Amino acid sequence: MSLSDIATKLTAHKPRLEAGHVWLAGAGPGDPGLLTLEVLAALQETDALVHDALVSPEIIEVAGQAEKFFVGKRGGRLSIPQGEINALLVRLAKEGRKVVRLKGGHPTVFARGGEEALALVENGIPYRILPGVTSAFGGLASAGIPVTMRGVNGAVILATGFAAVSDDRPDWATLARTGQPLVIYMGLTHMKETVADLRAGGLPPETPAALVENATLPEERVVVATLGTLAEAAAREQVASPALIVVGGIVALREAMAGSA
Amino acid sequence: MSLSDIATKLTAHKPRLEAGHVWLAGAGPGDPGLLTLEVLAALQETDALVHDALVSPEIIEVAGQAEKFFVGKRGGRLSIPQGEINALLVRLAKEGRKVVRLKGGHPTVFARGGEEALALVENGIPYRILPGVTSAFGGLASAGIPVTMRGVNGAVILATGFAAVSDDRPDWATLARTGQPLVIYMGLTHMKETVADLRAGGLPPETPAALVENATLPEERVVVATLGTLAEAAAREQVASPALIVVGGIVALREAMAGSA
Repeated sequence: MSLSDIATKLTAHKPRLEAGHVWLAGAGPGDPGLLTLEVLAALQETDALVHDALVSPEIIEVAGQAEKFFVGKRGGRLSIPQGEINALLVRLAKEGRKVVRLKGGHPTVFARGGEEALALVENGIPYRILPGVTSAFGGLASAGIPVTMRGVNGAVILATGFAAVSDDRPDWATLARTGQPLVIYMGLTHMKETVADLRAGGLPPETPAALVENATLPEERVVVATLGTLAEAAAREQVASPALIVVGGIVALREAMAGSA
Repeated sequence: MSLSDIATKLTAHKPRLEAGHVWLAGAGPGDPGLLTLEVLAALQETDALVHDALVSPEIIEVAGQAEKFFVGKRGGRLSIPQGEINALLVRLAKEGRKVVRLKGGHPTVFARGGEEALALVENGIPYRILPGVTSAFGGLASAGIPVTMRGVNGAVILATGFAAVSDDRPDWATLARTGQPLVIYMGLTHMKETVADLRAGGLPPETPAALVENATLPEERVVVATLGTLAEAAAREQVASPALIVVGGIVALREAMAGSA
């Protein structure tokens, strides 16, 4: 069977994107090879693609037939208020478009997909959530760091570093006290405060830590440090968004796991 | 462009699976539509597929040309010791096979992909880790529960419920004190102890909770309860592995988010 036949067969059981519906889809961390089959199929069906800055151009191109709506947000900063994005999705659906709302990573992991879903429900618009590989796990894989390892961790914590002053700000000191590794999304802006809070929760300065910039893309960079030297390393290497911060014993396994093909 | 042309183009930058190499690949939560393009391509290249019970038959079938090695484990119980799986991967690679080691979900999320990677490195065998959609996030999407929501959570904790007596057993009481939602993999066997520990950490019995059985598959079931009624609900509904346990405020959003296409 050809690849096309196989992909068609593997997605044959899934609903088709209908006029007036919105699909909230995850594009994965960046590498187009991490796109799922059902998101690929959705991109070929859509006539209205609403997308973020964190989606790779090669992925956008798949929806060559669709009108594109760029609602760029980057590092958590909205250039367009969320309410306007919600209103755009509702308007396009009401116009009878086949709408795909494409986000980096997974649509409900620090990506406001849940809020968009609620806006769609309130307006009686059918929607689906199409999972994507989340940036944390794609990024750790390409950086050569396991998410979990026997003898090291029985849990992993994913957190946003951006909610500095909102109610959503995680209690970093308590997260630190769990002894479990952390993967922090959008963590550069408030890194110094986050590190200080993790230290206050009892994590020693020698705790292994790393920064993964542009995870899974050709320009990916991994900067290995410790919790105590993380801010200095980020400044010295001029690490820029998008970047993941990884803290905990799993980072120390990177050296032993080196040797990837 | 045909789907086949697009999939080929989107994975053209990736390495090819070579003789004597092992790729540790994630098949996602179960739904074949959640397979990534690069894992699909790998399945078409392999001549030795080593796979678990949690991988769907439709996905195994893609590797029609490959010799299959079933190393079933389910609910954390190994029918074949991990050391034998490692040895099998090493032997197949040394025989010059193009090996794909396919796991449910993501290969290093409670799946021992890291241990297999270390065994390959020790034996000088080149490998790659190919991400998959992790069961937690695929399962929450199909259950209609957001992973994060503004105003509800700024972090999420993924934990294994199976490491009951090992060093990896998470400190549930401290995890509870973070106030963040938990998604527990392989949690049925030790559910009562886990719930008791979460209660001891201060989570009230009315904390929203859910069980997601056979996440993303046609036979998926979602059982909504509270932390206090979870064990009773699981017994009454005869929930069986594989199942995710979800605990926290995000579960309460399911009703408002209902209305999926």
